Amino acid sequence: MTIPTYDDVCAAHERIAPWIHRTPVLTSRTFDDLSGATLLFKCENFQKAGAFKVRGATNAVFSLTDDQARRGVATHSSGNHALSLSRAAQCRGIPCTVVMPHTAPQAKMDAVRGYGGQIVTCEPSLEARERTLESITQKSGAHFVHPYNDPRVIAGQGTCARELLEQAGPLDALVAPIGGGGMISGSSLTCANVSPATRIYAAEPEQADDAYRSFKAGHIIEDDAPDTIADGLRVSLRPLTWHFVSRHVTDVLLASEREIVDAMRLVWQRMKIVIEPSCAVTLATILKNRPIFENRRVGVILTGGNVDLSKLPWMSVG
Amino acid sequence: MTIPTYDDVCAAHERIAPWIHRTPVLTSRTFDDLSGATLLFKCENFQKAGAFKVRGATNAVFSLTDDQARRGVATHSSGNHALSLSRAAQCRGIPCTVVMPHTAPQAKMDAVRGYGGQIVTCEPSLEARERTLESITQKSGAHFVHPYNDPRVIAGQGTCARELLEQAGPLDALVAPIGGGGMISGSSLTCANVSPATRIYAAEPEQADDAYRSFKAGHIIEDDAPDTIADGLRVSLRPLTWHFVSRHVTDVLLASEREIVDAMRLVWQRMKIVIEPSCAVTLATILKNRPIFENRRVGVILTGGNVDLSKLPWMSVG
Repeated sequence: MTIPTYDDVCAAHERIAPWIHRTPVLTSRTFDDLSGATLLFKCENFQKAGAFKVRGATNAVFSLTDDQARRGVATHSSGNHALSLSRAAQCRGIPCTVVMPHTAPQAKMDAVRGYGGQIVTCEPSLEARERTLESITQKSGAHFVHPYNDPRVIAGQGTCARELLEQAGPLDALVAPIGGGGMISGSSLTCANVSPATRIYAAEPEQADDAYRSFKAGHIIEDDAPDTIADGLRVSLRPLTWHFVSRHVTDVLLASEREIVDAMRLVWQRMKIVIEPSCAVTLATILKNRPIFENRRVGVILTGGNVDLSKLPWMSVG
Repeated sequence: MTIPTYDDVCAAHERIAPWIHRTPVLTSRTFDDLSGATLLFKCENFQKAGAFKVRGATNAVFSLTDDQARRGVATHSSGNHALSLSRAAQCRGIPCTVVMPHTAPQAKMDAVRGYGGQIVTCEPSLEARERTLESITQKSGAHFVHPYNDPRVIAGQGTCARELLEQAGPLDALVAPIGGGGMISGSSLTCANVSPATRIYAAEPEQADDAYRSFKAGHIIEDDAPDTIADGLRVSLRPLTWHFVSRHVTDVLLASEREIVDAMRLVWQRMKIVIEPSCAVTLATILKNRPIFENRRVGVILTGGNVDLSKLPWMSVG
């Protein structure tokens, strides 16, 4: 297992700079009042492909040698990693194959194809997904880029906290959502090196609380297909992300589905920006844990803004 | 009729600076590609109270003498001017009364009250509205601030184009929506003085095309309660705004309801920001008039982001 270092984060930052946005940091009087904290929102919903995942995927793709790159890249994901890897491959001019369950929403498939990704569908099971992916990589020699259990991906995600610290100044705490743990790992790596006093909080849906349970138990507990509106957070920790979570995270905080949807709606209403449910979980946990964050300077990573606008969660949950 | 000057715009800018945001200017590769132009979006949807109207209302309120201010301000509006005037009055610590038809949505009434405005309801007719307002101003001595036919309001709105030109550099064209014409008048006033080569385009819904017909006829044509999703643009020009529209506007461009809703949705989807229908009409007209804007640097004023999130237009129109 190769553990990425902060030098890898800096190298990643230079490598991906031409292909990504240095996203802005927004503030909000409303949310400062509600939380009692000074919140600094790093807007990765404005990132290329609509999510932070483009950082890690782009770093992985541009880390390949020309020989490796020629055979293309492949992954399994029906979410932002699929979009991001497709776009990164398009930027480098190489093919990208994405394995998706045939049950994935048409809108997601269209978005991947919009970035030049090629989709191979499979049965909606872990086993089918892995078998399909393996047959692709064996046939084409395409290089597999895991959504988060990959040192290049983690180093890429670490560039986000690096920018945030440069833009926002010293932070008492940083809050990001946790699914597989790529963003939390990258943020931990950066903060441990350039801002060790910054506490790292991971925000997770109650209904997909495997990171919370892992953190409390002291070892990885996997969850098989948990059901939450925060569809980017349904995956489990893996050894590489567990390495960072177990060493650097101060706590894992939970929010209910209702709290996630309420926070998401409130951000749209008051900040006038579009964020996705997986992203709203951070603010939901901040608002319900006022004593932790009160009077602190808190970095909040708004991880993405890819939402199906014709199917908003408050139409059903609210 | 007092015509405001560019000196009034500069004085307004200084007067309101402590109370408003200097809103950011965003760009979008997607919309540059779709339009063939370089678009510079002035994000007044991020403005205090969610709309540019806070500029004019704040300038009017802080232009009052202490003696005038003591008796408060009043207006009729069920939209962003009501919110903005309430907030401006709250900032100055004086009362604000808003006349609204009793049919106005509860959400709008709540928002006005949230900013400390006091609501007086009336029958939903022009006559009832004016009678109610007059009885209030006579009784309390409150100062009436018209939503746009007021030199202080126009000078306040002119600060938006002033910031945009400072932030974005030279512009070949500037596009803003037109209802009563306050924003277009303020923008005209600023551009005529500091950037006379910038052409001013007013964007209007086909279903509320009174400014278009006025512009072609050469005199004000009023429209009684036109029906459009762009609810901020249902009002007609008045002498002061006609003064600017007739002298400075290059053309009035129209968009259908469907084009407005499509443009609004596309902005949410690709730029990840919340804009209201009255605001989307600008982009709708730009996209359908490519030959006018192609290869130009175009300022686009995104006027506001106050939307009822539980009732989005693509749910019914789309």
